[in-house]
Amino acid sequence: MKDIKVGVIGCGYWGPNLIRNFSDNYNTDIKFACDLSRDKLERIKLRHPSINVTTDYKSLLKDKDIHAVAVATPVFTHYKLVKEALESGKHVLVEKPFTSTAREAETLVNLAYKKGLTLLVDHTFIYTGSIRRIKDFISAGELGDVYYFDSVRVNLGLFQHDVNVIWDLAPHDLSIMDFIIEEKPVSVVATGASHTPRGLEDVAYVTVKFRDNIIAHFHVNWMSPVKIRKVIIGGSKKMVVFDDLDPAEKIKIYDKGITLSKANEKSVYQSMVQYRIGDMYAPAITNIEALKVEIEHFADCIKNKKKPITDGESGLRVVRILEAASKSLKKGGVKVNI
Amino acid sequence: MKDIKVGVIGCGYWGPNLIRNFSDNYNTDIKFACDLSRDKLERIKLRHPSINVTTDYKSLLKDKDIHAVAVATPVFTHYKLVKEALESGKHVLVEKPFTSTAREAETLVNLAYKKGLTLLVDHTFIYTGSIRRIKDFISAGELGDVYYFDSVRVNLGLFQHDVNVIWDLAPHDLSIMDFIIEEKPVSVVATGASHTPRGLEDVAYVTVKFRDNIIAHFHVNWMSPVKIRKVIIGGSKKMVVFDDLDPAEKIKIYDKGITLSKANEKSVYQSMVQYRIGDMYAPAITNIEALKVEIEHFADCIKNKKKPITDGESGLRVVRILEAASKSLKKGGVKVNI
Amino acid sequence: MKDIKVGVIGCGYWGPNLIRNFSDNYNTDIKFACDLSRDKLERIKLRHPSINVTTDYKSLLKDKDIHAVAVATPVFTHYKLVKEALESGKHVLVEKPFTSTAREAETLVNLAYKKGLTLLVDHTFIYTGSIRRIKDFISAGELGDVYYFDSVRVNLGLFQHDVNVIWDLAPHDLSIMDFIIEEKPVSVVATGASHTPRGLEDVAYVTVKFRDNIIAHFHVNWMSPVKIRKVIIGGSKKMVVFDDLDPAEKIKIYDKGITLSKANEKSVYQSMVQYRIGDMYAPAITNIEALKVEIEHFADCIKNKKKPITDGESGLRVVRILEAASKSLKKGGVKVNI
Amino acid sequence: MKDIKVGVIGCGYWGPNLIRNFSDNYNTDIKFACDLSRDKLERIKLRHPSINVTTDYKSLLKDKDIHAVAVATPVFTHYKLVKEALESGKHVLVEKPFTSTAREAETLVNLAYKKGLTLLVDHTFIYTGSIRRIKDFISAGELGDVYYFDSVRVNLGLFQHDVNVIWDLAPHDLSIMDFIIEEKPVSVVATGASHTPRGLEDVAYVTVKFRDNIIAHFHVNWMSPVKIRKVIIGGSKKMVVFDDLDPAEKIKIYDKGITLSKANEKSVYQSMVQYRIGDMYAPAITNIEALKVEIEHFADCIKNKKKPITDGESGLRVVRILEAASKSLKKGGVKVNI
Repeated sequence: MKDIKVGVIGCGYWGPNLIRNFSDNYNTDIKFACDLSRDKLERIKLRHPSINVTTDYKSLLKDKDIHAVAVATPVFTHYKLVKEALESGKHVLVEKPFTSTAREAETLVNLAYKKGLTLLVDHTFIYTGSIRRIKDFISAGELGDVYYFDSVRVNLGLFQHDVNVIWDLAPHDLSIMDFIIEEKPVSVVATGASHTPRGLEDVAYVTVKFRDNIIAHFHVNWMSPVKIRKVIIGGSKKMVVFDDLDPAEKIKIYDKGITLSKANEKSVYQSMVQYRIGDMYAPAITNIEALKVEIEHFADCIKNKKKPITDGESGLRVVRILEAASKSLKKGGVKVNI
Repeated sequence: MKDIKVGVIGCGYWGPNLIRNFSDNYNTDIKFACDLSRDKLERIKLRHPSINVTTDYKSLLKDKDIHAVAVATPVFTHYKLVKEALESGKHVLVEKPFTSTAREAETLVNLAYKKGLTLLVDHTFIYTGSIRRIKDFISAGELGDVYYFDSVRVNLGLFQHDVNVIWDLAPHDLSIMDFIIEEKPVSVVATGASHTPRGLEDVAYVTVKFRDNIIAHFHVNWMSPVKIRKVIIGGSKKMVVFDDLDPAEKIKIYDKGITLSKANEKSVYQSMVQYRIGDMYAPAITNIEALKVEIEHFADCIKNKKKPITDGESGLRVVRILEAASKSLKKGGVKVNI
Repeated sequence: MKDIKVGVIGCGYWGPNLIRNFSDNYNTDIKFACDLSRDKLERIKLRHPSINVTTDYKSLLKDKDIHAVAVATPVFTHYKLVKEALESGKHVLVEKPFTSTAREAETLVNLAYKKGLTLLVDHTFIYTGSIRRIKDFISAGELGDVYYFDSVRVNLGLFQHDVNVIWDLAPHDLSIMDFIIEEKPVSVVATGASHTPRGLEDVAYVTVKFRDNIIAHFHVNWMSPVKIRKVIIGGSKKMVVFDDLDPAEKIKIYDKGITLSKANEKSVYQSMVQYRIGDMYAPAITNIEALKVEIEHFADCIKNKKKPITDGESGLRVVRILEAASKSLKKGGVKVNI
Repeated sequence: MKDIKVGVIGCGYWGPNLIRNFSDNYNTDIKFACDLSRDKLERIKLRHPSINVTTDYKSLLKDKDIHAVAVATPVFTHYKLVKEALESGKHVLVEKPFTSTAREAETLVNLAYKKGLTLLVDHTFIYTGSIRRIKDFISAGELGDVYYFDSVRVNLGLFQHDVNVIWDLAPHDLSIMDFIIEEKPVSVVATGASHTPRGLEDVAYVTVKFRDNIIAHFHVNWMSPVKIRKVIIGGSKKMVVFDDLDPAEKIKIYDKGITLSKANEKSVYQSMVQYRIGDMYAPAITNIEALKVEIEHFADCIKNKKKPITDGESGLRVVRILEAASKSLKKGGVKVNI
């Protein structure tokens, strides 16, 4: 047991969570931590005295005992670090968003494939009880056809230095959308505005269109006085609201919608739309920490050569939309085909 | 007293409210009601036995005792009816949206001006205690610069026959935006989708951009399992949330926001953004029916030759955005300059 | 049709609702209205021109065309008015609370029985979709044994002149409890306080105990800054929350509770209580006005000599608890057996 | 610095929080931990390798380096442990409820006084930003006279083995009441019911009366499907709602209430009560962990011989009410004078 030795690069906000979970997992053992800040490394040492620490990621990658590397650094460094990790023969778990460009993501996906290594993008939400429950519900056909996917993720701060609010907040919801809607998006429209000198957008709106009139929309905002984290999914049979801030009932399934009567002569002038207002149902959701589930899955993929649920391809699909959104945003909201 | 005699054209959903309020007002007297449905007219007669009723609006317009006409019919009829009413020398109150095209609205505005008649567009929200309180607050400079205006108006139904969800629901929030933000919008981007055979969009998103990085966004949806009617206004000093469904506290004013430090050498690498999280304050709002206030204002404008707060110009400005949104929507979300 | 002619005594707050519903019902016809205030009678006349009005209830009772009388006057007048109405051979619908004393209620119940007349106490809540849904749910055994019934009904005002907050607000919830718990209460404890010179309690708490460890509790308050109208019912299998102010989901049924393991040697030191946290379910509730349903039921009882759901007996049971609560309150919270 | 050496007795649910906070505080140093369970001690060792651990509390008390002892064991052991700790010359911080009887509490208060030792009862809520803000507000006279204090603390579980739901949950709210209302309670009435074989009440209601018509009420329940933690405080000038589960606005101050007109001849028949409905205000609350503040205060009291805010007297006052509640409960809800 604990036969997968892991190194973590980046010990800022998320790194310590990765370290704790790798440490608690029965299959993985945390061996090495890397960060440019010695302060952060010392704090890691305090809680995990037996860990090796370094400010030089290359020495971590050179360590032949290390089987897997987790990369939790700023986005613009992902490509270089993941590439070198894969080239050093390490399995990789990498923070979202996967890379800064779709081209980089494609290169890494191909590299991992050639090397036969596991590459998992940390789309954490996919491993929550809530999202898995919604996925099961939709896969079972209970929602019917997906009509729309509407997401709001707003609160005050934290402003990022290197990316705008879309690259910071939307990957969460884009990864959920990517997991739930098994269609290929065809176009992206993004609008937004910046209110600080650096010019990075702090409020933005992204529309993603699919075939068959499926529409997805993402509202992200670093300047909202209230915190909202809500996804509404409309379907032809039922509708779902996922409110991540509701401590008791995160998922509500509504037996609501419309019924279309068959057209007849009369109906040309009359409404063919009838409303259906039925019960609401809030399933109990398992409360296991998503990252714990994800790291178990990572270990399982490594040991049993499985394809991760949130593999490089899923990371690539999210980056493609982010890239298209940036392009649309720059031109003031033009439609960008994918 | 009661010296302004009024005729109402259109006795569907909104007409009876107009009739009741004209009847209760001290300056106005409801004399004539018109509708194509004799059933609706009979129901009006039951509650207002002394009223004249007709299915022919021309006979109402010909009545020389009538000083003012209220038009509460489907949008596509507004232009013709308002034009004839003005030409008959009547003051006019007309439902929102004002007209189907900006050109029509311009013609009517000019006609009313030439005739010296009062033309009021029924942007009811402007006459609520909530919106007037927000306006006062912003006019007093307490919000600081407006950063964004974000509106959500979603629920299940009612599907309209002749217009899509933008023309049906967005005029409410566009008129609020028009009242609050005293800038000229410069561009519109709209996306949406339809899920019924008629092809009218049932979910849509509209972005309106102004100079100085002010952005407004409107989410309208006829297919939401939950009802949301919320506007968030972000400013440089404070922020406001208007939740029309909160029975107790419709307006919340947050002393929250960011403070920008002056740039210095160090700040190139450090965040210049600091968060300010202060108190929240929910002012008591007067509860007078908005339509009552509006009709008092209409009578006052007629008697004292005042310019209505929601005059033809404001109706025109809203229609211009609706028209631009339709154009953008048709092209899948291109940017349309106004 | 409309063969039951009705007279209404008392045209204050609730009377007009009774008149409107008797007027709309297919079996009843409103013929006569009585109030001490001529102003109120005039307002009734305006909306119902064909109605007879009087300030003398005796002339109403003398009218042989009148089959049924609704009494919507202050509590202390109920006994006299209902008695005379029954003696005049009229069926009676009377406001809650039924009477000022249990003895009065008993007399009226007996009188109605002897005369073969319908006597219905206006426990309106019993005719709402919400309470009927809860009753069905419990009758079907889905709640299991009732453990507790906890009710909160608080808001600012309206202070009453003649009764304290218990007699004003608790009858609503006591009638719901009486409908749902089919056991006989055995004791009452009430505490409260008054903060106005008149000395009528404006905040009070009432505990009603049954056999088998069933406990009910009522919190009523005229001086609360927030409005709460919530009932929680705990059972051995499931639990129900009824929130009358929730516009969308008035009833929530929780698959939550405890499971008791069989005692064994070990369990002396270990907890035998295990928690069960399952799904939540909010059934769609019909939205028909309760008073409409009640008056249909009243007409049905008269025509078909049925026993009303909220008959004099149910009114008497509620008054018995109110009387016991008053006694307990006066003595500072002693236990009063029923 | 760190010159107060501390030992903790009891390492169950709360003990580890005490240890962490004593460890983080600049004035205190955690030296010794005691528990009957070796498992729990090992877990403590893991996080605090330098700590001494023992299953024998006497060896901890004998350690002359220890200046202060924190007792976080079941209630029935408090008296014995605190007594021995004081007799060994240790300052004491003890969990709530302070003791099982008022007599025990009195003995300990006297003993601490005689020994000149600091005795602090862990009424944690008193050290939250929320409660201190409410206290400041009331002390400044802004609430006016206190009219009532209404508390609800309900959720599913955790059932305790040795005490009923009153002794488990009510001490939180009783300590808040004791802190806020600076009057002596005069009587207690308690009702409740048990639904498990052990016979410990799982739902209960406690009324505490003061002079001047001040009333306090406590609803505690281990069997509620929903979690509620709410206190409403009514005053002659304003009213406060403290909702501990609201992540954003824990305290809301309402400018609501009634105004009493001076009595005159006419007012005998007219209402003298007028309603005042003004603004609501939610002050920003500091978010510092209450236990951190409390332990700083404990250290400050020890070093500077100050009287703790939550001293033995406050613990005694809470126990007196608990004891009276138990007595009232046993007799089915009789009034017990204090």
